[in-house]
Amino acid sequence: MDSPSDQTRVTQREPESAEQPKWVYAFGAGHADGSAALKNILGGKGAHLAEMSRLGLPVPPGFSISSDVCRAYYKAGRALPEELKPMVDEALKLVGETAGSRFGDPKDPLLVSVRSGSRASMPGMMDTVLNLGLNDETVEGIAARFGDRRFAYDSYRRFIQMYGDVVLGIDHHLFEEKLEHFKNMRGYELDTDLTDEEWLEIIRLYKELVDKELGEPFPQDLHDQLWGAIAAVFGSWQNARAIAYRRLHDIPDDWGTAVNIQAMVFGNRGDKSATGVAFTRNPSTGEKELYGEFLINAQGEDVVSGMRTPQSLTAQARRDSNDRRDSLEEAMPETFAELCAVCDKLESHFRDMQDIEFTVEEGTLWMLQTRNGKRTMPAALKIAADMASEGVISREEAVLSINAAQLDQLLHPTIDPDAPKEVIGRGLAASPGAASGELVFDADEAVHLRAQGHTVILARVETSPEDVQGMHAAAGIVTTRGGMTSHAAVVARGMGRPCVSGATRVQIDLEKETLSAGGVTLRKGDIVTLDGSTGEIIKGRVSTRQPEMSDSFATLMAWADEFRHLEIRANADSEFDAAQARDFGAEGIGLCRTEHMFFDENRISVMREMIIAEDVEGRREALAKLLPMQREDFIGLFEIMAGQPVTIRLLDPPLHEFLPHDEAHITEVAEAMGISRNRLARRVDALREFNPMLGHRGSRLLVSYPEIAEMQARAIFEAALIAGERLGAPVLPEIMVPLVTLKAELDIIRTYIDRAAAVVSEERGQTLDYTVGTMMELPRACLAAGDIGLSADFFSFGTNDLTQTTFGLSRDDAGRFLGEYSDKGIIHHDPFMTLDDGVRELMTIGLERGRAAHPGLKIGICGEHGGDPATIRFCEEIGVDYVSCSPYRVPIARLAAAQASLGSAFTLS
Amino acid sequence: MDSPSDQTRVTQREPESAEQPKWVYAFGAGHADGSAALKNILGGKGAHLAEMSRLGLPVPPGFSISSDVCRAYYKAGRALPEELKPMVDEALKLVGETAGSRFGDPKDPLLVSVRSGSRASMPGMMDTVLNLGLNDETVEGIAARFGDRRFAYDSYRRFIQMYGDVVLGIDHHLFEEKLEHFKNMRGYELDTDLTDEEWLEIIRLYKELVDKELGEPFPQDLHDQLWGAIAAVFGSWQNARAIAYRRLHDIPDDWGTAVNIQAMVFGNRGDKSATGVAFTRNPSTGEKELYGEFLINAQGEDVVSGMRTPQSLTAQARRDSNDRRDSLEEAMPETFAELCAVCDKLESHFRDMQDIEFTVEEGTLWMLQTRNGKRTMPAALKIAADMASEGVISREEAVLSINAAQLDQLLHPTIDPDAPKEVIGRGLAASPGAASGELVFDADEAVHLRAQGHTVILARVETSPEDVQGMHAAAGIVTTRGGMTSHAAVVARGMGRPCVSGATRVQIDLEKETLSAGGVTLRKGDIVTLDGSTGEIIKGRVSTRQPEMSDSFATLMAWADEFRHLEIRANADSEFDAAQARDFGAEGIGLCRTEHMFFDENRISVMREMIIAEDVEGRREALAKLLPMQREDFIGLFEIMAGQPVTIRLLDPPLHEFLPHDEAHITEVAEAMGISRNRLARRVDALREFNPMLGHRGSRLLVSYPEIAEMQARAIFEAALIAGERLGAPVLPEIMVPLVTLKAELDIIRTYIDRAAAVVSEERGQTLDYTVGTMMELPRACLAAGDIGLSADFFSFGTNDLTQTTFGLSRDDAGRFLGEYSDKGIIHHDPFMTLDDGVRELMTIGLERGRAAHPGLKIGICGEHGGDPATIRFCEEIGVDYVSCSPYRVPIARLAAAQASLGSAFTLS
Repeated sequence: MDSPSDQTRVTQREPESAEQPKWVYAFGAGHADGSAALKNILGGKGAHLAEMSRLGLPVPPGFSISSDVCRAYYKAGRALPEELKPMVDEALKLVGETAGSRFGDPKDPLLVSVRSGSRASMPGMMDTVLNLGLNDETVEGIAARFGDRRFAYDSYRRFIQMYGDVVLGIDHHLFEEKLEHFKNMRGYELDTDLTDEEWLEIIRLYKELVDKELGEPFPQDLHDQLWGAIAAVFGSWQNARAIAYRRLHDIPDDWGTAVNIQAMVFGNRGDKSATGVAFTRNPSTGEKELYGEFLINAQGEDVVSGMRTPQSLTAQARRDSNDRRDSLEEAMPETFAELCAVCDKLESHFRDMQDIEFTVEEGTLWMLQTRNGKRTMPAALKIAADMASEGVISREEAVLSINAAQLDQLLHPTIDPDAPKEVIGRGLAASPGAASGELVFDADEAVHLRAQGHTVILARVETSPEDVQGMHAAAGIVTTRGGMTSHAAVVARGMGRPCVSGATRVQIDLEKETLSAGGVTLRKGDIVTLDGSTGEIIKGRVSTRQPEMSDSFATLMAWADEFRHLEIRANADSEFDAAQARDFGAEGIGLCRTEHMFFDENRISVMREMIIAEDVEGRREALAKLLPMQREDFIGLFEIMAGQPVTIRLLDPPLHEFLPHDEAHITEVAEAMGISRNRLARRVDALREFNPMLGHRGSRLLVSYPEIAEMQARAIFEAALIAGERLGAPVLPEIMVPLVTLKAELDIIRTYIDRAAAVVSEERGQTLDYTVGTMMELPRACLAAGDIGLSADFFSFGTNDLTQTTFGLSRDDAGRFLGEYSDKGIIHHDPFMTLDDGVRELMTIGLERGRAAHPGLKIGICGEHGGDPATIRFCEEIGVDYVSCSPYRVPIARLAAAQASLGSAFTLS
Repeated sequence: MDSPSDQTRVTQREPESAEQPKWVYAFGAGHADGSAALKNILGGKGAHLAEMSRLGLPVPPGFSISSDVCRAYYKAGRALPEELKPMVDEALKLVGETAGSRFGDPKDPLLVSVRSGSRASMPGMMDTVLNLGLNDETVEGIAARFGDRRFAYDSYRRFIQMYGDVVLGIDHHLFEEKLEHFKNMRGYELDTDLTDEEWLEIIRLYKELVDKELGEPFPQDLHDQLWGAIAAVFGSWQNARAIAYRRLHDIPDDWGTAVNIQAMVFGNRGDKSATGVAFTRNPSTGEKELYGEFLINAQGEDVVSGMRTPQSLTAQARRDSNDRRDSLEEAMPETFAELCAVCDKLESHFRDMQDIEFTVEEGTLWMLQTRNGKRTMPAALKIAADMASEGVISREEAVLSINAAQLDQLLHPTIDPDAPKEVIGRGLAASPGAASGELVFDADEAVHLRAQGHTVILARVETSPEDVQGMHAAAGIVTTRGGMTSHAAVVARGMGRPCVSGATRVQIDLEKETLSAGGVTLRKGDIVTLDGSTGEIIKGRVSTRQPEMSDSFATLMAWADEFRHLEIRANADSEFDAAQARDFGAEGIGLCRTEHMFFDENRISVMREMIIAEDVEGRREALAKLLPMQREDFIGLFEIMAGQPVTIRLLDPPLHEFLPHDEAHITEVAEAMGISRNRLARRVDALREFNPMLGHRGSRLLVSYPEIAEMQARAIFEAALIAGERLGAPVLPEIMVPLVTLKAELDIIRTYIDRAAAVVSEERGQTLDYTVGTMMELPRACLAAGDIGLSADFFSFGTNDLTQTTFGLSRDDAGRFLGEYSDKGIIHHDPFMTLDDGVRELMTIGLERGRAAHPGLKIGICGEHGGDPATIRFCEEIGVDYVSCSPYRVPIARLAAAQASLGSAFTLS
């Protein structure tokens, strides 16, 4: 920042006692006590008003009461400190001097606005009072000064209404009713139909209303008005909608708000007056052009109220929108030029696109607010890339300016905006992306149809853990109940499936298997399209677009890659996923879950043969049939990744996951397998587990069935040699052993792998290079990392399971109460989305002990958290080597990793 | 120890080079290089022979080769170090000088024994060679010296057989066959029938056998014999049975064995010779009396071989056993007196009951071994108490001398030894105690019958996690498959149920529901008795005895209570358990699991009503019916514990545990409840969980259903006031919130509890004192203990669930592979029996952080580990305040806590 804060003349007197903290900061007329650097105590609005004053921009004089006073106010049980009074009086006097009028002067009274302003933007959440300083006496002074009684009375009645609502707690509808009734009695349509005398009558009616509601008259003492307004603004920090907003945006309750008191300027003083808002660049596209709208002879609230249609700022925009009314550029060319100059100055000073509010009072331009403008993700990318190219910001700053998590918006398939679509219903946009498929109403059926190659959309009233397999099998999920943290929403986001949840006006009849909405009834098998980014439910198939990456995106990603330390890999179990990951810039596969390769209809029957086999020979026979299929899988992955590392995890889930569970399916599968129903049922029974998550899986399974590890290792090694030949360069597979708690587990399985390598190497007469590592996904593994690290070439933190066991929380079952936990404020983040502190500590322990025992041990992370920017920042901090996430999240991870390396991260402005 | 090790004359020359370690330790004739203190390198036998020499007791001279040489032997690939040779030669010379004969002297040859001896007793696991020093030449010297050719030839043939077997690897049956054949040809029955010439013929036949088997003659070089024997004894450290024994007893492989070489003395030199074993006290009862047996004119092996029936040592014992043969006391009164004096000296020197071996050679007493004697648990208690009373040991030493874990033997109901019983089969003694009941073959049926008040014994081929509820419902479990670490064994021990596992010769027919063994077939409903301490399966009911505690037990427990710091409580859910706990000396209840109170038939139907209720009003209605029952439960517990602390845990399990799960039961229960089958089935479905262990339970359930916590808290508080009035002293309930991971969970539930307290206090006009704490049973809770501790009055580590989550291991499912893990050496201890290191670390973290945040925070442990001595030692070390275990384990815990406080613990002698 180049604000000369140290050399600035102090316009506000020093506090009387050295111990008295500074609570009031004046600004205006080219000077200010505060600056943008004091945003934490002056709030965004106050700090930027001060900064604009310092820049010599035309800011109506005023002062900010710091948020420290807000805290003092609450600490004292909603009472303002006595010591504040003289400071405010002093500051108000100074404002009057600068503005050339005096607060309470019956001849030429100063009017002020009283507004909130916290360090985080909370638009519209807190209260504002305008036109303060009017009473029965001063209103006449205004009338005289402006020579306009109508304007004066209109301002006064507006003030009574606003003050009555905000400070005195009288519902604003009561005032509006009075006015409407008055107009109706006289047959008036517009406010402008009222004469000045009639406005006086309205004032009388309003005052009568206040007297009746409160039992005492509307305050005529201007200082009472002022202190009432200040207290009301501080008080609005704790109103229900502000609290809810803060909860939603993670804003601490104890930040408090500042109060800004500023001389009023009037955009409604005639045709040479106006008010408007402007963005220094197009917030939608990021184009470098003044963007915004204004109204002649209006106040700020008129622009947002929608009563009048605002006009364009630029001639070009007017032409583009076919508006016959003059643009600001045409109507007030000098003011427009001045505004453009101000915008340039603000943008280069704040080094970001600005969102400003301005008022023109009888030809004079006044700046009322500036802040970093909100923008769409494509605009954010373009602005960052452009500003770095223009030299306004550095490339590092450009990378840091993007909210990595929001990149997600760009990375999913979207509904083709040009395609016709019949939207029949709407719900919550619970998980982004779009998908079309056949409607099914039963999770098992979804699994079944998926296995037969159908693409299905699962519709449920709500989902439960029983539906998880079905959700996985579905291309999209729609529910009629539940919110953004419902089971369906949480699980779908975790799986990367588009989801529309809580579509309350849609009827699902599970018996008849129909979905009815908007007068349309769809049956099982009908095609439906979901847009999880908008919440739309659409009849029939709508073409979707694969995400398209702009030049700015590519530019920023390239810069990010220069800055980041962390290697970014993807979790990919298929050639399709691998290609997607590579296209998104993944530098390898960090997790290939081999079990996903066995759910295909041909293969699952062989898997089942193996599971049903009575002995190791029987199992080997079945595994021999799987071997060539696995080999082809791995050849495909190796070829696509063309020399980049590929980490393959050996079979992880308990065997019962591959068997049918209910009576009907057992019968069906037994028939298909040509074995007796009883035999299959017995095996299903024998394998059933109380807590499969904590059961016979991962390394435990491989210890019991070495032949599985041997087959998989053989497939990997054969594939590596074949792919290596085709690629003309050796492939180095990384074999990962799942769910290890004890070094001995890894040691034993490692011997199976080594043996397979020796056999394949011997058979083919070629040498083989590979590494063997382990998932770190249990608390004990992290604690014993010093031991396990001795036997591992690499660790990969499996944060999904680590979170489940650290918390003692089954992800499949937690949906039942996590929503309630969030509602009751027991948790602030879903631990399956954002790494919990306990899990972080265990990871840190695991990493430190692992590296201490095995210097240079390669350490990564896979699991849902891998694509979460906060997790990536944490990984950078503790020294993780690589992060692996779902292919769609690879760009997010690349950007977040760069931001983490740059030592800072995107923070909400 | 009072052995004058520093002042002893060194009888063995110092090693030649200063760098040469001392490998050979001589003893005999009142002097010794070693002492009892060198047990770690000389082994128990060698160290005690040295110590006896130092005490001036008659020990045949000899020397020990240290176990360092054993390690060197294996390090060199089973080769003895060259440097050992001169040391052994030197030592052997010294032995000859002391014995008055010379190794290899054809006129008067020295014969020696070569025996193993490790620091831990491994009886019979390793090899021994006796009578070494005989060849065709020296045998004549022996014949001449003793004037007894028969004796000389018999000794030589014994030597060839033993050496042939142990050193040369020729099966001893081959030698025995030769001898049998020879005797059969001549019609001889006894060895004594052979003449000296015939023995010479046997020797010839034996040597021929060796020649034929090995292709070379039996070694005549005495030094070859000696080195062969030394190497063989070292080699036997790694024989299969020694390795297995070490695994079973946790003896490290690298300890190695020492080798003891000692001049032979002969108890078979005529009627003035004898050999025997003696205990300085009765090892069965602990009575202070010489106890043992001997044989006149015999060698040690004859006493153990069972060919001749040994005679009593004392006249009293002879009379008691109606033996007409003289006792040692009568046959050799002088020797007997000498032996008694030696025993007294040994016992007071070693300060423990001794188990000795002696030989009398032609009237001269020789001591061959002494060691601390093994004893039964009742004897151990009596000996410790007596020796402390006698002033031989201190009370602290008496307490330390008892193996706390083995106290278990005394604490379970046992079969009345006087009752007639028809044992029909046998299996492994998998879990101690005895029980009778009706035979059932199905776990669900066990649950069902138990609910109807029947006492049942569950018989299964093997058990699986599906059977766990049934096992809990059964009074005892019998299986035909599986070992000591099978699912049945592990779970039964955990539950404290008697179990006979792996009864391989018993047939169970699950279809016909029969159990057949020993020609008897029992049907469902027939009464059977199991003795889990012996493995017996008994037809019909046999009366059992409640454990009876001796005076010595009471004495030692009283001493233990003086020494221990840890408070000992019991886990008790019923008045019966509480009374048992109090009788065993518990100082309070550390865990009352309230859910167990709801499985009673009357109550479970009300529980189900609550679970089925559509809304909170419906639930409250059902809970109101449970309230008076709960109140009575708690009044009972408070009255029995009479002012001692009682910790009551609020409802923990997921609600589906109270609902039926299979079709048949659902129909039945729905009918009984008078609701539609569908409604119940829907609720069962809705509550079903993938991983109940990680599901909607504990504090999570209470957050969702505050009315449950409120009802329970109210019942507790009302009961406390009522019981307090009856007892005439206030009751201070401790309320425990289960499964907490987040401080907010505890805070919320605490408000429900506080509210209930305020209401009850108001209603009854009495003040209420109580504390609220939490189970620490999840890794995250331990890590977040600094936070949670701020809201808790106490912590109780729930090590069962903490182990499950730390390990990611479901106790109900782990049975499937823990046995295999143990067999493969992956784990050495079941983590559910012995605290795992990772769990220990988390507990330490939890304790430290909890106390740092909340100084003086009371901390306990409950769960199966609470009664494990090693766990108790750990709890003492880290500063836990109290331990809570099952009532039967309370005495173990009291003793183990005292041992922990005394800073040492029982170690295997």
